[in-house]
Amino acid sequence: MQNERSRSRRWFLGLGAAWSAALVACQSKTASPPPAEPRALGAAVSPYGSRSKFEKTARYFNQNTKVPLEEASSRTPLHETYGIITPSSLHFERHHSGVPELDPATHTLTIHGLVGRPLVFSVDELKQLPSKSRIHFIECSGNSGGEWRGGSTESDVQRIHGLTSCSEWTGVPVSTLLRECGVDPKATWVLAEGADASKHDRSIPMKKMMDDAMVVYGQNGEPLRPEQGYPLRLLLPGWEGNSNVKWLRRLKVMNEPAMSREETSKYTDLMPDGSARQFTFELEAKSIITRPSGGDTLVAGAFCELTGIAWTGRGTIVSVEITTDAGATWAKAELQTPVLPIAHTRFRFPWKWDGKDTVMASRCTDSTGYTQPPLTELITVRGMNSQYHNNGIQAWKVASDGKITNGNRA
Amino acid sequence: MQNERSRSRRWFLGLGAAWSAALVACQSKTASPPPAEPRALGAAVSPYGSRSKFEKTARYFNQNTKVPLEEASSRTPLHETYGIITPSSLHFERHHSGVPELDPATHTLTIHGLVGRPLVFSVDELKQLPSKSRIHFIECSGNSGGEWRGGSTESDVQRIHGLTSCSEWTGVPVSTLLRECGVDPKATWVLAEGADASKHDRSIPMKKMMDDAMVVYGQNGEPLRPEQGYPLRLLLPGWEGNSNVKWLRRLKVMNEPAMSREETSKYTDLMPDGSARQFTFELEAKSIITRPSGGDTLVAGAFCELTGIAWTGRGTIVSVEITTDAGATWAKAELQTPVLPIAHTRFRFPWKWDGKDTVMASRCTDSTGYTQPPLTELITVRGMNSQYHNNGIQAWKVASDGKITNGNRA
Repeated sequence: MQNERSRSRRWFLGLGAAWSAALVACQSKTASPPPAEPRALGAAVSPYGSRSKFEKTARYFNQNTKVPLEEASSRTPLHETYGIITPSSLHFERHHSGVPELDPATHTLTIHGLVGRPLVFSVDELKQLPSKSRIHFIECSGNSGGEWRGGSTESDVQRIHGLTSCSEWTGVPVSTLLRECGVDPKATWVLAEGADASKHDRSIPMKKMMDDAMVVYGQNGEPLRPEQGYPLRLLLPGWEGNSNVKWLRRLKVMNEPAMSREETSKYTDLMPDGSARQFTFELEAKSIITRPSGGDTLVAGAFCELTGIAWTGRGTIVSVEITTDAGATWAKAELQTPVLPIAHTRFRFPWKWDGKDTVMASRCTDSTGYTQPPLTELITVRGMNSQYHNNGIQAWKVASDGKITNGNRA
Repeated sequence: MQNERSRSRRWFLGLGAAWSAALVACQSKTASPPPAEPRALGAAVSPYGSRSKFEKTARYFNQNTKVPLEEASSRTPLHETYGIITPSSLHFERHHSGVPELDPATHTLTIHGLVGRPLVFSVDELKQLPSKSRIHFIECSGNSGGEWRGGSTESDVQRIHGLTSCSEWTGVPVSTLLRECGVDPKATWVLAEGADASKHDRSIPMKKMMDDAMVVYGQNGEPLRPEQGYPLRLLLPGWEGNSNVKWLRRLKVMNEPAMSREETSKYTDLMPDGSARQFTFELEAKSIITRPSGGDTLVAGAFCELTGIAWTGRGTIVSVEITTDAGATWAKAELQTPVLPIAHTRFRFPWKWDGKDTVMASRCTDSTGYTQPPLTELITVRGMNSQYHNNGIQAWKVASDGKITNGNRA
């Protein structure tokens, strides 16, 4: 009882100054009676649920463009998603020729080239093989690409950074399939090709294929969504989105890269000396404050929780630091546990804005010891013609009226 | 180079006898040309995705019943879901008066009773407070309840065990809210009440509320689904589903349990001596083989992967063992990592059926040292009138023609 009493006394303690302020609005409404609630039966059970009619959150895509919407991208509403799992319906999209409608009863995956025994797998056959599930992010290498030239005019986190999402993927290790085909010892690359009209393809080093690549058929517990490659996609943990070939139809084992269109004219990084970095697959450590963020308005003196996501293609996020004084000081954010490798990592940081204009930003460090750099450092090395792989620090400007805008804009 | 060469040589190695057999079907189709694929543009990007038209997997509910479908349950297709995240659209349902349609702009949560300062929170106010996300299962205490009396006539894993699902939940710790209200030291219980027509309610011990209870508004990255309590539900990690009150409208702080209908006439366990166990919230360690399972047919001599889920309301799953010889021997299954506390844990076990009739089953052990018991042991202690909290071992019978049926049936 003594113990119970001392425990109970602890329950008296409030949140402290920090959060009491945030509850001012609530206090003003104390002791009102509970509102009227439904008295009639609600809806029945259903075979396959859908979200509330009151929820309208959507992927963003530019509808005022000459680019056909079949060859476009849509972006995840990072400011309106929670935790680390991206809802499948809001996973970002990037298609080169639209979403093909593939029948899983007839779609196949062929493995051929420098193998002793070429094989054709049906989707059902793949589902019989030893499987794995992993929670991993996928990010488009063009994410945040508009920021290279002094900051884009885009103002919100969805439009600037919404080409990253995180799911639980289920499938078969590529190594299982390649071993069964008997790979020629001379083989060093594998061409992965999709079944979309553009036959999107990328050459992937054999080492990655054997290390942790997967042919996945499951996303967040159910079959892949059509826009994520249904019925099969390649998953290359931590590597740029376009190499995770969707609607996967073919793996050709080779002893050199195919030098296809997507790895020559596209998806290379033009350097200041005119040369192009090629096969820059790996995504480096990156983080963004997602809420509050561009388009939101802060209230002076009110506490709020800064939250966002950090991720790295090379291991695990070990720390996220926050500055709310334009980089003069940095303080550690809390990381949501468990922190998973090559996955979005949620961070949180309590903050009270003092009403003066400032800049806030996050930077993360991964398990290799690498720290997310300022964008200016990337520009010093890569120049202004490189538009992929921007993992620079995202700054948010806070004006004295509380309005938040893109702080990368000069 | 030497290194590269020795690595390459490893790629020659096949799967070994174990999996080669599973690929017989594939081998017969070697070297056929890749099938014809779409040559026209596919579908455009879209604001909110949906699953492929080829996918029909659904929650199961009994439509030939006198119970109204507003006061019913629907069950997760455990044999057709992957990994550990249950798709929100396939999360099991159990409603006492249907799914109310609640407007998040007007819905509120009231905290009153033995508090110094009663408070009313809007949904938006709750979303401003310090948040947490956790991946946890929710299981109905009535799950597998039909098995007590010698095994139900239900034959598949969805109908027998489909009242468990696992999601990433996001919300505010209840302790944050109660501390702000200033809880009376005499308070020992909290009545949680929903806004459905039945005003479903349960009394929850204060200790649980302060330890790890949450008021959640997010599920798998987006707002709660209507059938999971939109816009707010109580989350009590590891405690029976009905105590995780949905459509949460009120928390009343008390110094005794309310003894409401749901905790007196329902959700108690009738023991052999005529007394009833009450407030048996905690869910004990349990596991099931989900695939192959009841309704599937095995092929003799072909390898297959046995897979399933294990979970416990008290910590973490530390091992899952499989028997394929009716309990004579048990062997450890592989656990998918990371193993998360109070979450579904995926296990996998390769097996080649020899064509003789047998019984297969799984049993798990959790971090408290507790091992899932045979159902007969539960019956010895609790008798045959107890229908909740069946965490006994689920046996699957394999007939000599390969057909799998409910092995609990005497």
